[in-house]
Amino acid sequence: MERELLKSVTRRDFLYRAAAVGGTGLLLNAMSAWGMGIASTMSGPPVLSGSGKGKTVVILGAGLAGMTAAYELGKLGYKVQVLEARGFAGGRCQTARKGFELTELGGETQRCAFDKGQFINHGPWRIPLHHQSTLHYTREFEVPLEIMVNDNDHAYVYLENAGGPLAKKRLRAKEIKSDLRGHVDELLAKTVQNHLLDKELSADDQRALLEYLKHEGHLEENLAYKGRTGRGFAVYPGAGLNPGPGKPSDPLGLSELLQSGVGKVYSAVHDFPMQATMFQPVGGMDQIAKGFEKRVGRQIRYNSAVESIRHGEKNVTVAYKDTVTGKAGTVTADYCLCALPLSVLRMIDTDFSDKFKDAIKAVSYAPVGKIGLQMKRRFWEEDDHIYGGHVITDQKGINTISLPSWNWQGKKGVILGYYNYQTAAIEVSGMSPAERAEFAIAAGEKIFPQYRESFDSAFSVAWHRVQYNLGGWAEWTDDSRKNAYPLLLEGEGRVLLAGEHLSYLTGWQAGAIESAWQQLARIHERAMA
Amino acid sequence: MERELLKSVTRRDFLYRAAAVGGTGLLLNAMSAWGMGIASTMSGPPVLSGSGKGKTVVILGAGLAGMTAAYELGKLGYKVQVLEARGFAGGRCQTARKGFELTELGGETQRCAFDKGQFINHGPWRIPLHHQSTLHYTREFEVPLEIMVNDNDHAYVYLENAGGPLAKKRLRAKEIKSDLRGHVDELLAKTVQNHLLDKELSADDQRALLEYLKHEGHLEENLAYKGRTGRGFAVYPGAGLNPGPGKPSDPLGLSELLQSGVGKVYSAVHDFPMQATMFQPVGGMDQIAKGFEKRVGRQIRYNSAVESIRHGEKNVTVAYKDTVTGKAGTVTADYCLCALPLSVLRMIDTDFSDKFKDAIKAVSYAPVGKIGLQMKRRFWEEDDHIYGGHVITDQKGINTISLPSWNWQGKKGVILGYYNYQTAAIEVSGMSPAERAEFAIAAGEKIFPQYRESFDSAFSVAWHRVQYNLGGWAEWTDDSRKNAYPLLLEGEGRVLLAGEHLSYLTGWQAGAIESAWQQLARIHERAMA
Repeated sequence: MERELLKSVTRRDFLYRAAAVGGTGLLLNAMSAWGMGIASTMSGPPVLSGSGKGKTVVILGAGLAGMTAAYELGKLGYKVQVLEARGFAGGRCQTARKGFELTELGGETQRCAFDKGQFINHGPWRIPLHHQSTLHYTREFEVPLEIMVNDNDHAYVYLENAGGPLAKKRLRAKEIKSDLRGHVDELLAKTVQNHLLDKELSADDQRALLEYLKHEGHLEENLAYKGRTGRGFAVYPGAGLNPGPGKPSDPLGLSELLQSGVGKVYSAVHDFPMQATMFQPVGGMDQIAKGFEKRVGRQIRYNSAVESIRHGEKNVTVAYKDTVTGKAGTVTADYCLCALPLSVLRMIDTDFSDKFKDAIKAVSYAPVGKIGLQMKRRFWEEDDHIYGGHVITDQKGINTISLPSWNWQGKKGVILGYYNYQTAAIEVSGMSPAERAEFAIAAGEKIFPQYRESFDSAFSVAWHRVQYNLGGWAEWTDDSRKNAYPLLLEGEGRVLLAGEHLSYLTGWQAGAIESAWQQLARIHERAMA
Repeated sequence: MERELLKSVTRRDFLYRAAAVGGTGLLLNAMSAWGMGIASTMSGPPVLSGSGKGKTVVILGAGLAGMTAAYELGKLGYKVQVLEARGFAGGRCQTARKGFELTELGGETQRCAFDKGQFINHGPWRIPLHHQSTLHYTREFEVPLEIMVNDNDHAYVYLENAGGPLAKKRLRAKEIKSDLRGHVDELLAKTVQNHLLDKELSADDQRALLEYLKHEGHLEENLAYKGRTGRGFAVYPGAGLNPGPGKPSDPLGLSELLQSGVGKVYSAVHDFPMQATMFQPVGGMDQIAKGFEKRVGRQIRYNSAVESIRHGEKNVTVAYKDTVTGKAGTVTADYCLCALPLSVLRMIDTDFSDKFKDAIKAVSYAPVGKIGLQMKRRFWEEDDHIYGGHVITDQKGINTISLPSWNWQGKKGVILGYYNYQTAAIEVSGMSPAERAEFAIAAGEKIFPQYRESFDSAFSVAWHRVQYNLGGWAEWTDDSRKNAYPLLLEGEGRVLLAGEHLSYLTGWQAGAIESAWQQLARIHERAMA
């Protein structure tokens, strides 16, 4: 499977690697360089007329796509039956808390041992403000949201492979930003002052540019950058006379900053979808799944793994096996909406045309790993004054150490110890759960000396080893997007497909929801024809 | 009084104006230009040995400084009595919700008519991560915190007086940042490419600089800036084929950006104290006051306005009048900690030396105004997708329209309609409450057409017109900081002073707390001597 997964590692993969890294601009700029954006105009379900009364739809998979379709089709009057292989709904929209069990393919069973009230969103963990489709349902279902700190200039950057003296130094993002921008603004300001841009810029624009650079880079009257309070203080002011007015700490040099390459951890602005404001549901991402489940749970048949799909002129018949009783069963309906990941669908016995089967096989799925580490105390807040956000590192298989954006000043906390992808994810996923924890701790303690002594318990996932998912998200190559994607969007006969894989929002819940909106509209269109 | 207040409008005032404006870099850089920083090293109360048993302290004012002293001195065994003129504790740490009453000097009584659950923090409204002293008590008192969105690139910037075509245009902060940085990075990159900086930079640094500029400004291979997804999309990608991959919207031109002066609304990084992460107590800032009140409430005598202070060799006698019964009373104690604003103290009958009285008069207090506008619906979220943060405008008397960082996707919300300061605050405070609301709405609807139709009810405050405060915060001039400040820190006889005014954190709760820590330590030192 792993070879298969690696078949199509393309430039586009980096987008998701970047998305994984999150708050930082690390590689994220790549995104729009290939005309890819992650946002959406669909902010509500399609407005459809006519009734689906008397018509039946069997939906495969009770993930967000499947449940969105079940919910909206139900509103239209359709009789809906959802088959879900697991004992719970949500698909990848999961939250691991005390007692949550996961057995990866060929792996030992992990039972989450976090304290009551602690958890990790080991699947989707962020809702960008631009994903109005996801926000449509948090609003309709009254799922309370809170801010997920996706950008924290006070957090550390630690690059082992940085060139020069900054390698293996623990820097604050704000030091890098302040000093790089300050030096660069000084450089341009002096270039203007030395009349080297007289051809390019009018006298008025040169004056205005100098004003802007002095403000933006916090340059002194002589256009020199000497640091700023935003990078931190050498002497901190407080009450009374002493310590008295503060003095900014000394800036890092331009050359060492440039040679270190640390500048790549931020960008002028975040590209989609990483911009503030970022949200998370209060109490865990699975609150969204539960919001759907509350409304369509009665239509879901749990523990029902799809075994085959047969479609004809008049209807579709899906055979499933009860994973608890082992009993087989079938469901026949006028239409089938298959909201299973293509990585799973490709292993199911179907009577699709070879062309359609090939299209299903054409897309590979991302190997993705995450680990939650419960810490006995919130040392990152107490000692380092970092509240949420991402600590960026280039340590292979780690990428980011992300700090919880809830239970501020609480006693314990669960941090994301790594978020790895592709080859690194495959390597780490070969380790046992205990080995993964040790791997994460060994990397983390290079940045936070408090790491090991504070470690409590861990829960990790390697999505490419999780049955019924077999990967983090669909990864299209330019080629498969051009050839296979359009075919899959059409579906075959009375079977239509939906999921994040059929969107340009791959890897996001919004992709699953919007794809479902689009495909249920097509089912309705056909049913009304 | 107003003339008096305006006596010392100095450069430093701009710091607080900037602080008022908040999330933006607007003028905030001024701060460190004069060696001022706003942060602190004091993260906990002084660790003191010895007991205050049998010793008495009368504390004037149950604001955060007074209650901090009462709480910590109580722990040390002192017998403490706090005199508070109001019927509730907290001083400026207030939250206006349904039923909250305020009668400004010479003004009509306002009774807050917000819906149950709605409120405005019309006093302090932000807790910077750097203010560990304030965070010390939110932690000790278990006051739940949430993120206050102090920085939102998706929010609007609307400058009426901007030069050129961008005047009166509603821009998103991210458009300004993306395009200004992109153009400026292109300019410097091409300067390097044209070998105009061969003397200044080594070949290695030039290579690294080009890499950085391409990344940071999102430049194309030919070093041109053509926009980026972070500024927004012309075509939004979503599910299915259509609309398909997105295309960034067209950038604004460098010259129009420079001539408009909009670049001043942001900076490379926020200077202290505006950096993320910013906090607010869940349920209103007064939750901090209530945390103290719960612990020292029994030592507070409410409705007791101080009339005179007499101090001698052995003790201090404070006379007060009960503002409800009109009955007079006195308290005699070994020491007095006066935590009243100097603007109030200067009007009290004392037997301080003329020198000390002059020092008390030497500092003026900031005229500051805020208005909360309850809106029938959260149009800024529903229509504009702006979740919290500050909409920046140069409309006189407005400065910022700040959006609530709680109750996301709720039905109603209270926004801060203006945060004005100095002359603008004095002008606006001359209006009736109804006129202030109309003033705020007329300005707001230039930016949000939904403003007027959504308006529900308003609550405004002009701190310089509030009895027992008479101003927003102490404003030191370089001169008064040099001459009066040290005297006031010393106190006179058995009377010591405390409050935000005796710190370099003026206008912040942390200033009040840290000043109290410092002064209670001196009382203890003397008592132990």
